[in-house]
Order: sequence, then C-alpha cells, then structure tokens
Amino acid sequence: MTRIKKVILSESEMPDKWYNIHADMPNKTLPPLHPGTKEPIGPADLAPLFPMAIIEQEVTRERFVEIPDEVMDIYKIWRPTPLVRAYNFEKILDAPVKVYYKNESISPAGSHKPNTAVPQAYYNYKEGVKRMTTETGAGQWGSALAFATKFFDIDLQVFMVNISFRQKPYRQFLMNTWGATVVPSPSKLTEAGKRILKENPDSPGSLGIAISEAIEMAVKDEGTKYSLGSVLNHVLMHQTIIGEETIKQFEKFDDYPDVVIGCFGGGSNFAGISFPFLRGNLKNNNKTRIVAVEPESCPKLTRGEFKYDFGDTAGMTPLLPMYTLGHGFIPPEIHAGGLRYHGAGPIISQLLKDDLIEATAVNQNECFEAGVAFARTEGTVPAPETTHAIAQVIREAKRAKAEGIEKTIVFNLSGHGLVDLASYDKYLRGELQDYAVSEEEINQHSSEGMKIPISA
Amino acid sequence: MTRIKKVILSESEMPDKWYNIHADMPNKTLPPLHPGTKEPIGPADLAPLFPMAIIEQEVTRERFVEIPDEVMDIYKIWRPTPLVRAYNFEKILDAPVKVYYKNESISPAGSHKPNTAVPQAYYNYKEGVKRMTTETGAGQWGSALAFATKFFDIDLQVFMVNISFRQKPYRQFLMNTWGATVVPSPSKLTEAGKRILKENPDSPGSLGIAISEAIEMAVKDEGTKYSLGSVLNHVLMHQTIIGEETIKQFEKFDDYPDVVIGCFGGGSNFAGISFPFLRGNLKNNNKTRIVAVEPESCPKLTRGEFKYDFGDTAGMTPLLPMYTLGHGFIPPEIHAGGLRYHGAGPIISQLLKDDLIEATAVNQNECFEAGVAFARTEGTVPAPETTHAIAQVIREAKRAKAEGIEKTIVFNLSGHGLVDLASYDKYLRGELQDYAVSEEEINQHSSEGMKIPISA
Repeated sequence: MTRIKKVILSESEMPDKWYNIHADMPNKTLPPLHPGTKEPIGPADLAPLFPMAIIEQEVTRERFVEIPDEVMDIYKIWRPTPLVRAYNFEKILDAPVKVYYKNESISPAGSHKPNTAVPQAYYNYKEGVKRMTTETGAGQWGSALAFATKFFDIDLQVFMVNISFRQKPYRQFLMNTWGATVVPSPSKLTEAGKRILKENPDSPGSLGIAISEAIEMAVKDEGTKYSLGSVLNHVLMHQTIIGEETIKQFEKFDDYPDVVIGCFGGGSNFAGISFPFLRGNLKNNNKTRIVAVEPESCPKLTRGEFKYDFGDTAGMTPLLPMYTLGHGFIPPEIHAGGLRYHGAGPIISQLLKDDLIEATAVNQNECFEAGVAFARTEGTVPAPETTHAIAQVIREAKRAKAEGIEKTIVFNLSGHGLVDLASYDKYLRGELQDYAVSEEEINQHSSEGMKIPISA
Repeated sequence: MTRIKKVILSESEMPDKWYNIHADMPNKTLPPLHPGTKEPIGPADLAPLFPMAIIEQEVTRERFVEIPDEVMDIYKIWRPTPLVRAYNFEKILDAPVKVYYKNESISPAGSHKPNTAVPQAYYNYKEGVKRMTTETGAGQWGSALAFATKFFDIDLQVFMVNISFRQKPYRQFLMNTWGATVVPSPSKLTEAGKRILKENPDSPGSLGIAISEAIEMAVKDEGTKYSLGSVLNHVLMHQTIIGEETIKQFEKFDDYPDVVIGCFGGGSNFAGISFPFLRGNLKNNNKTRIVAVEPESCPKLTRGEFKYDFGDTAGMTPLLPMYTLGHGFIPPEIHAGGLRYHGAGPIISQLLKDDLIEATAVNQNECFEAGVAFARTEGTVPAPETTHAIAQVIREAKRAKAEGIEKTIVFNLSGHGLVDLASYDKYLRGELQDYAVSEEEINQHSSEGMKIPISA
C-alpha cells in the first residue's frame, strides 16, 4: 500500500443540497435596483430573462436548497470530483505546507462551469424554454452551457468575446460539436453590438459587452431566456457543491484547510470552493483564510470601488451593489479571458467589504510560470484562469516558510488548459506581456455607476 | 437517491498487478527475429533500445506482474478511472442494449497512454537513463510520455508524424508545456528521415517512419533509450490495469459484458480493456466477444497478412510476427492519427489468428457521426481514434435489435478529443473524406516482410 494521493467520494456520498451563504451572512446584500427608476427590483422585473425557479433561487434565504434528481443524474457523469494532495508540487515549494487541489477540470467541458449550467438548463426546460442566450469570455462558460442545454433539447446562442474567439478557435469548435451557435461579440446581431462596432470595428470585446448582447436578444424574443455563468446569487449557490464535497473529502484526509484559494472573475469558482468553508468560519468560529485571486489587469476587488453599477457595458442589467472598475472598463487582452470582467458578484462584494474574505492580484507571467510548474509536477495543465490560484499558492508557501508556520492550503483547480494551449505556447516563447493598470485608467471610469445610498 | 451512473473504485481497491496474457494463450507468439540473421533475438539484442526491466517484461510468462509503488503513486493522480453507464447514449440507440464506457480520458494527458508511459519512464529512470526518444501519431503517446518523463527528470525527444504535427498544433504545445522537444517526422535529425525527405519533401509521414527515426537516434547515442507506446508485449501488459479495474467495477454494477470493444492502432488500448475479459473466456469459459475496430483506411487486421514484418518503415526493428499491410504502407491522412500504423502487435495478431478475438473496420465519417452523437448525449467529446469504438457500439446495437437479443456492451473511451477539435470542425462542415483502400494498394506492399516458416 502506498500513501493516499486523493479522495473520491462515491455517488451515494455526494452532497444533495447546494449551500446558500445568504442565510449566514452577518450583513445581507443590498437589493438590486431597477436601471430606470433606481428602486429595488422585484421578481417580475427579472421574468423576461430567467425562469421563475431561478429567480426564486436568486432571492431565497433558505440555507440549503435541494438538488433535483434530474440534475444529479447529469452531475454524476463526472461528479463527485477528486480532492488531490499535490505531493509532487509541494516538493518544489520547499515550504512547511500541505497543498490540496479540488479537480474540477475532469468535467466533459473541462471546468467547474457545468455545475451551474446543468441546473440552469434544467429549470429553463421545466418552464418550457426552447432557446437560450449567453455570453462567454474564454469559452469555458459557453461550452458548459452548450454541453448542458443539449440534455434538455434547448437551442443555444453564444456571444463569445471577440479576443477569445480569435485566440481560442477550439472553444468554438467545442461549442459547435455540442450543437450551439457561436458568434464573436460585439456582433451585428444586436443594437448594442452594432453601436460598439461603429465606434471601434476592431473592438476586442469584453464580458460586459457580450452580456449586453445576450440580454438584448433574450428580451426581444419572448420565448428566449438568458443565462449568466457567474456573479449572480443562484450561480454561486450552484457552485457550492464543490466546497461541500471538499469538506467531506478533508474529513477522510483527516485534515482541514488554513487557506482556501480560488481565482476570481465574477466569483463562481471562488464561491464554489470557499463558501462552505466560510460557513465554518461564521458558524463554528473556524479561522480559515479565504483568498480571491484576480488579474492585475482587471483589479476590481483590490482597486475597484464598492457601489451600484451595471453588470453589462450597455447598462441593460439591474444596478448591482458591487466592487467595480466601472461598466465601461475594458480590460487588456490577457489570456485568462474568464477573468476579464469589470465587477464582482454582490455576495462576494459584501463579504469583502465586511472583511470576511481577502483579495489579491497577480500578473499573467507569474501565473503562467506557476501553471507550468504545476503541470510539470502534478500533470494537469491548468486553465490560464486557474493559474492565478496556483500563483497565490506559491506566494502563500513563501509566506509560510518566512513565518515558519505549517499550513494546509487548498485551491480550486477550476479548469484545465487543453483548449488554451496557444497561451502556453506564447508564454514558453516569452511573448506574454504583463499589464499594470494605471491610476488614470482606473479613474477614467470612476464616475460610472452610483454611490451606495447612506441609508443602506 | 437517483440511479447509479458510474462506479469509481477507491485507491485501496485499485489493482496492484498487471495481467500478462501470454501466460494463458493457447498458442504463444512466435519469437521476434533479428533483422539481419533472421534468427530469434535474445534480450541482449534489445539492450541498446530498452532498459533491462522492460526487456524482462517483454518476454516474461508470469501471469501477473506487480506494479511498483512509485508507479502506483503517479497512477493515483487520475486512477482508478470511472466505469460509466451511458444511459443517455442508450436512449438514441433504441435497442435492447446496456452500454458502459471506461473513461480513460480523464488522465492529465487525456488518454490511456500514461498507463504505460509512467512505468516505462520509471524503469528507465531506475537504470540511470537521462534521455529518451519516441514517435507519436496523433500526439497522444508523445504527450503521455512527456507527462511521464517529467516525473523522473528524463529529457524527451519526440518525432511527431508530420501530418499530425500540422493538423494538431495544440499537441505540440502540450508536449512543450511538459518540457519535451518535438520535431515533425520525417526530420533532418536522422538518416532515415533525410532519405524519405529526399524522395518526398512533403511526406505526410507515418508512425513507421517516426519509429525508424526515434530508434536510430537511440541506437546512435549510448545514454539514450527508446520507448514505444503500443504493439509490444510490455506495453499491452501495462494497459491491462484498465480491464482489471473494469472487472471489479462490473461486479459492483452486478453486470458482465457480452461484448468488449476497443479501437485499434497497434493494440494498446484494445488490449488494456479486453485482455482481462479474454482471461475470463480462456479460463472460465465465458463467452464475451472481443472486438477490435480499425479504420478502413488502414485495415491490417481485416485485410492484412499474418507474417513476419518490420515494426518500422526503414527496417531497423526486429521482424515481428503480425498482421501487416507491409512496412512500406503509408495510410491516407485520416484524423485518427493514432490508428495510422501498418501492423498489429504480435500478441493481438496471434489471438486474431486463433479466432479468440474479432476485428472490423469503419470509415471516418461514420466514426465522427458516432462521436458527435456520443458527445451530445454523454458529454465527453471522444478522440477521433475512440470514435471507432463508438461506431462499432452503434453497429452492435443495431445487430442486437435485429436479433432481438439483450446485450451488455462496454467500450474503452480511450481518450477525449479536446486537442483534436479541428477534426470535429471539419466533420461538421462536411469536409471529411472517407478512404477505401483498393486491392491494388494492399497488394503493392504484399511482398514486404517474410512468410511465417512452416516449422513455426
């Protein structure tokens, strides 16, 4: 018998409920506001975009929400996922740390995104929806929803951020293989897209723009609904199956993390791995540090402002209370396309404001260096997004070594990089650029959005 | 509780021995012959190419060979792999069949190939080898060995079949990310490569040519050893961990297969899934049908001749007793690059000659059609090679329906197609060509090799 490398739960041990952290937050999130009236919105305002079951999940304060059997059946294609001890990676860290990774990369789509894509497709199907729209950055979300909608005979139109569309043709092929239709965004299919193309025909696009396009198309066509892969409460909740499994797996390892790390775009994989551990902090007085890692090129958590802002570029979404760089901010063309978003989810933002989580920022060369080191010791080539979490693991290990304190660290291996290998090629050739966003660029969009009212 | 979708063994349930079918074959394989003397070769003849531990495994008649702890430690990064019931795929078959797939695609390299890459790298490391060479077709083997050698600080030179090198740039990036050096074959690094380039500067290459190059480089440099990803006995043996796990998993499903299916290039994934079930046929009188599926464009099992032939194009390897199309046969440029090999492993060939296994051939459009159908029902996008197995599952289902007989079918999902998505794109655009090899082409190389002596 050799040492235990990983713990996989059996299907019968799989958690059958998602965790809703809203129930345990000391300060609840402020309400979303109607973009016109600036009054809190009600469920009816969201009905053109989402099925009622999703809207209910968006506002519920129930602590646990049951996962439907039909969703469990599809989850079981790849779930539960392994929790793996990174013995080989630990060796090169040469620090008093144990490192674990939750391997979400083994889903058919190659990332954690199907955890919410499947229930979203399911709830739409239950309410008779035949067509959905969405946006995608690096393509992980678009592929996940293409994968998920196929199970429920729903047609999918994906608006893919133009820069990623060009950098990652394989992502498009993948979505097509699963039967989805994909266009680069900004596109000529929507008014929002046409406006932006008129100003800049070579626009690299952004998640904010792609969201505007997807929403516009859903609003215009009554039979079509929209789906978002991050930011919103129900999305974060669906992802908590990651952390719920991880807690059970740590019990079998007879260990518990001092630090939980996730990369950060809109918050979905980060929330998924961390919220169940945050419950341990809030309810059981555990002292686990929860660290979100964003790119230096898109630093909303570390350098953004907490205020009401739009979730999209064109200002079609409700105003959400969040850390934001301004909805007009278009991040540089880094390879972690999934992290190029101007804002953070309302729950995450409230938690950060209340000092219940930490945030840090890393530049992309440091990230790819960490990604290659991980690939050469643990095998899996991480997605460019995921390398941000690994870079932070290395920083934490250095810190533990400097402080001489033993630490158990877990990070979310949110996706593999097999469809993003062109980025690794660029990195290995030394052609990747780092981007430091200047104070000027940050200030440029600081007037966008709306201050949080004092009464709140 | 919902139905059981898949069975994953725990690490402690993992088989710790490989199965050597040689022990149970009614007719043993004929000996390999020296290319010069035509006399049976001894271990010393293979010493320039392989470490002694590998040579011993090549000739052993032990029924089971223990897996070293160091290999188990690395296997556990992704093993044991799931056995999954394809409920959704079954629905579209509309036939009285249960279909299971062994999911080897979740390894970091995306295929079953690391099962032998890891022990081969390990045994080389144990004998002090610092540099290895190999060939690769579609790139799955080259990536697997790049992944494996990194654990043991061995440098790797990969000769990648030119057509695949051009079709699959991501494979090259993947090998580079793991630190290997990759050149398209034929190359100017070897005499064999130079000779072929002189005749045809645009040669698409073949596995046979790439093998010649990798062997030539290993023979010339004493500190360098060679590694083969299929065909040979030790390679097939390492892969049997697939079938050994599958047997244990079927016990937990309370089921047993009537048909076992694997795609066929040189024999490694096919042997891996099937040999342990063949043991059941040979020892326990089970009646499981074992079916190898090759491309119509490279039909050595269904249209080749059983004789002594070289494993490579330049005639540097020992003469092996096998079904072959002639070592000069260069298959059309199909997308399942891993199946473009002129011969079959000696064990497989003997088993086929003795009617203990079956063989069939499929064209590539039928395969991709099956691959897309599988991706749209079970999620995972199969490698082009693997789609051959799936096409045969569909044929078996039709047969079961016509005969009105219930069947349990298992196939080896030997790899995913995420690095081969350009092929799917071509298929979906209707640009893939089928290739029927003419009698003339088959006859063209029929004088190559050497008849089996009557005395044998």
